[in-house]
Amino acid sequence: MALAIRGYAAQSATTPLAPHRFERREPRADDVVIDILYCGVCHSDIHQARNEWGGSHYPMVPGHEIIGRVAAVGEQVTGFKPGELVGVGCMVDSCQHCDACAQGLEQYCKEVATFTYNSTDRRDGLPTYGGYSERIVVSDKFVLRVPDGLDPKSAAPLLCAGITTWSPLRHWKIGKDHKVAVVGLGGLGHMGLKFAKALGAEVTLFTRSPGKEKEARRLGADHVVLSTDAKQMAAVAGRFDFILDTVPHQHDLNPYLSTLKLDGVHVLVGLVEPIDPPVHAGGLIFGRRALAGSLIGGIPETQEMLDFCAAHNIGADVEMIDIQQINEAYSRMLKSDVRYRFVIDLASLERQG
Amino acid sequence: MALAIRGYAAQSATTPLAPHRFERREPRADDVVIDILYCGVCHSDIHQARNEWGGSHYPMVPGHEIIGRVAAVGEQVTGFKPGELVGVGCMVDSCQHCDACAQGLEQYCKEVATFTYNSTDRRDGLPTYGGYSERIVVSDKFVLRVPDGLDPKSAAPLLCAGITTWSPLRHWKIGKDHKVAVVGLGGLGHMGLKFAKALGAEVTLFTRSPGKEKEARRLGADHVVLSTDAKQMAAVAGRFDFILDTVPHQHDLNPYLSTLKLDGVHVLVGLVEPIDPPVHAGGLIFGRRALAGSLIGGIPETQEMLDFCAAHNIGADVEMIDIQQINEAYSRMLKSDVRYRFVIDLASLERQG
Ligand SMILES: [Zn+2]
Ligand SMILES: [Zn+2]
Ligand SMILES: [Zn+2]
Ligand SMILES: [Zn+2]
Repeated sequence: MALAIRGYAAQSATTPLAPHRFERREPRADDVVIDILYCGVCHSDIHQARNEWGGSHYPMVPGHEIIGRVAAVGEQVTGFKPGELVGVGCMVDSCQHCDACAQGLEQYCKEVATFTYNSTDRRDGLPTYGGYSERIVVSDKFVLRVPDGLDPKSAAPLLCAGITTWSPLRHWKIGKDHKVAVVGLGGLGHMGLKFAKALGAEVTLFTRSPGKEKEARRLGADHVVLSTDAKQMAAVAGRFDFILDTVPHQHDLNPYLSTLKLDGVHVLVGLVEPIDPPVHAGGLIFGRRALAGSLIGGIPETQEMLDFCAAHNIGADVEMIDIQQINEAYSRMLKSDVRYRFVIDLASLERQG
Repeated sequence: MALAIRGYAAQSATTPLAPHRFERREPRADDVVIDILYCGVCHSDIHQARNEWGGSHYPMVPGHEIIGRVAAVGEQVTGFKPGELVGVGCMVDSCQHCDACAQGLEQYCKEVATFTYNSTDRRDGLPTYGGYSERIVVSDKFVLRVPDGLDPKSAAPLLCAGITTWSPLRHWKIGKDHKVAVVGLGGLGHMGLKFAKALGAEVTLFTRSPGKEKEARRLGADHVVLSTDAKQMAAVAGRFDFILDTVPHQHDLNPYLSTLKLDGVHVLVGLVEPIDPPVHAGGLIFGRRALAGSLIGGIPETQEMLDFCAAHNIGADVEMIDIQQINEAYSRMLKSDVRYRFVIDLASLERQG
């Protein structure tokens, strides 16, 4: 007996999100049924709702920064109990046997992970639907514990914006001996500043907009460099061990590459397709620098991040909205008019009756 | 009292190389005076003789794959004695105090290394002249020992083609657990195959030309993949830990990036300016892959490579020429008509009288 669910969906690439009723599967033995409390609003929700990456299926219920309470668990589930606060991020399943999965890096699953929405469940072949809804059913392997002490509202964006910045910082072992630069101050960038600082690095924000000094410092930056100012850029030539580039659209990487020191790494977490203007090989060769990419993060490191956030009192800076405001929120995000992540209070779904 | 030297020089970007007499400095206290026996011919000799990279100064005496015998040493030199077989590569000096120099990575010297030719000596401000000549004067810190058992002719190309491929293989710790692909089968590529094999890796050659299987296998390849064949490329998707890309001109990196496994690295050792067609960020992000660059190698690792070559009986495959054939050799190199490196026998300078 499938579960009847209320949510918000896009019915096509060109229609605004609107109330939508759909079904979720009857819980399987390893499933956790979660009553959704909060869901962060990610840029990729907009891209996919509007089919800007191609491959969108409708109706689409976006949302992959989910915080909720366990409502029920399948008979094989031992790690979660009804009433517990939990999270779900970008993935709800993977093959569980490839090299990547064996390393806890399900986001790189050779058979491709099952994503939280706009994907196809690998067991029953049905579409997946995301967190702009009242309830979700997820295999226990993809459910995260939300530790005591984390504010559930500001924890929601950790499930995508958080882990996407945490994972590369940890993979490249960033710590107190490193000078880190974060490019861009949005949902991802503001988490990058917080994490890099908490990990002990000296942190710089690269921004194209003057006047962000105070905000950047509040979020963890030790320095702010205006990337449009050639003099400021020249002053940081060869300075950084690591650049975390959160800018989600095409931009010139060459000026940033020149600010890396010997063996420095510039990591892209946003799809800037294709990289244009092109990268100069000399910028890589003279300095043995690397340009790399990183995709969200695996389940074990997502749990690690949530635990770290609880221990260090870290959360996203959020602006709460009702689900009825979602289309307006999308418009504002496209103007970068949010500090720094919208989070939907799903209690507002009640108004739909 | 400066030393009068016979050599071959380009007098301008458009004149062929021709006999040229010039002076070298009187040896300083830390200098080694070397009678040049052999000098390899590198693609960058052509680029610089013809000012294709800009910044060329004339007359230019190219050559940075130098093998010779010590003729004399300055009073402070303790590491070398007259009669010993030695080598000189791409660099003859550096600042000796920056972070890179302190790590033995003089090629990344913050104050820029002094190159063997077309550079300016950092102590006396005079131009540097390379190995297409009978004798060279070099600070002992930039002189390499040629171990017993190395054939001096086939050792010459190790000083640039050799170290340029050795350094990245060592830096990225390539060994028997790795699958390595080498792109291009020229002076650098053929050394890449030999080194990767000797280091224990499973080695694949990517080539655009059919019919190289036998040669590639002789040089160390376990597999050969025709990069123009989409089927062969698809068969190696996600296969390699490391790609050593020796192609010295623009080419599409995206098909190669897709053959890297999770955390794989594609290293450029040739200036492919700029990288065009552009790289797709998705190729980096989905697989946490990196595109990196590497420049020649430092003095300690060059010595390590020469010692390794002696221990493993490795040398370049060379075609010996007289200095009078240098312009013809350049023409043939531009047609890739050499297996795999021309080496000048400097005894031929005697013919100039
Ligand atoms: Zn997201
Ligand atoms: Zn998998
Ligand atoms: Zn060279
Ligand atoms: Zn230096």
